[in-house]
Amino acid sequence: MKSYRKELWFNVPSRRGFVNITPQVEECLDESGVSEGLVLVNAMHITASVFINDDEPGLHHDYEEWLEKLAPHEPIRQYRHNDTGEDNADGHLKRQVMGREVVVAVTDRRLDFGPWEQIFYGEFDGRRRKRVLVKIIGE
Amino acid sequence: MKSYRKELWFNVPSRRGFVNITPQVEECLDESGVSEGLVLVNAMHITASVFINDDEPGLHHDYEEWLEKLAPHEPIRQYRHNDTGEDNADGHLKRQVMGREVVVAVTDRRLDFGPWEQIFYGEFDGRRRKRVLVKIIGE
Amino acid sequence: MKSYRKELWFNVPSRRGFVNITPQVEECLDESGVSEGLVLVNAMHITASVFINDDEPGLHHDYEEWLEKLAPHEPIRQYRHNDTGEDNADGHLKRQVMGREVVVAVTDRRLDFGPWEQIFYGEFDGRRRKRVLVKIIGE
Repeated sequence: MKSYRKELWFNVPSRRGFVNITPQVEECLDESGVSEGLVLVNAMHITASVFINDDEPGLHHDYEEWLEKLAPHEPIRQYRHNDTGEDNADGHLKRQVMGREVVVAVTDRRLDFGPWEQIFYGEFDGRRRKRVLVKIIGE
Repeated sequence: MKSYRKELWFNVPSRRGFVNITPQVEECLDESGVSEGLVLVNAMHITASVFINDDEPGLHHDYEEWLEKLAPHEPIRQYRHNDTGEDNADGHLKRQVMGREVVVAVTDRRLDFGPWEQIFYGEFDGRRRKRVLVKIIGE
Repeated sequence: MKSYRKELWFNVPSRRGFVNITPQVEECLDESGVSEGLVLVNAMHITASVFINDDEPGLHHDYEEWLEKLAPHEPIRQYRHNDTGEDNADGHLKRQVMGREVVVAVTDRRLDFGPWEQIFYGEFDGRRRKRVLVKIIGE
């Protein structure tokens, strides 16, 4: 069994944003030499997500508005977590909707994807350096 | 390490619906010959889900109503994604609540399930052929 | 390839609650002898979750209030699932928001975690014994 590990670093300049990280994950897969197996891609921070969906700016705008409706950032004081001095409680909630991680099949050295699947880093408390873990196991 | 791959095809005749796909995944596991490992089952389309819950029609009705409340289909024009000519933005949102994929343990050649766990395909933009990927790795 | 399996049992004394199960999962990893691979941790029941987030009581209070707003327990009769004699339909909904499972990388015999990641059992229909599955594969 082969195993491979890499950390990807991001610094999203706004509080929230989505970044297509598919090319970096493909690069990891190339480096790993794995042709059959599984790739795990997970946020290492708890106010961020990794998810798979469409690379369409209108949709990302819809996600932003929808998540803000489901778990609004303001008023800060509505969340008990923010009594600790943080202002990111909403980010912990939004991340649960969008998910921490994806697991993707590796077949014949490629990410085994449907036609529109792309991997995104979802940031809900940005303006600082944060990490995603890529772990690949297989043969 | 053994690895196995199969695509399952579905054509749900309505916009939304849930299909119990546990028997097909069990068939895949039989074919794979894997006795210890992991099964990944994921929607290959981005307006569909794979999730594990109860095979109870009342519950599926509740999911339908609840998801429609969290991310309503109408009015179409409320979503910027639909400016692209699509009418399925709500499906992209609903799928994030229900999830893209499940990972299930394989123990002693069986899906290692609790008493009520069943795997479902969740369709949020149906009336066309769409795929689920089953990938199994192990020994 | 090594594989390891263990069931963890919980009896949360209230209807809903969150339990940090990271120490038990670390114990499983020690017992498994796996140094490189993947850990799957999943609820075996369909009104419970396993998720990764922060071990901060204020945040858990926020999750509780937020989930109760997204999928309220009362009135019981609003859910068709409860016509079966159950009163836990809301638990099946809440569990979809928080997720069934997590997959965690194993690197150098450790759970490969970011600074604040902790694994929780999320109970949405407690006051009885329920199980979590830990499955580890790797080398």
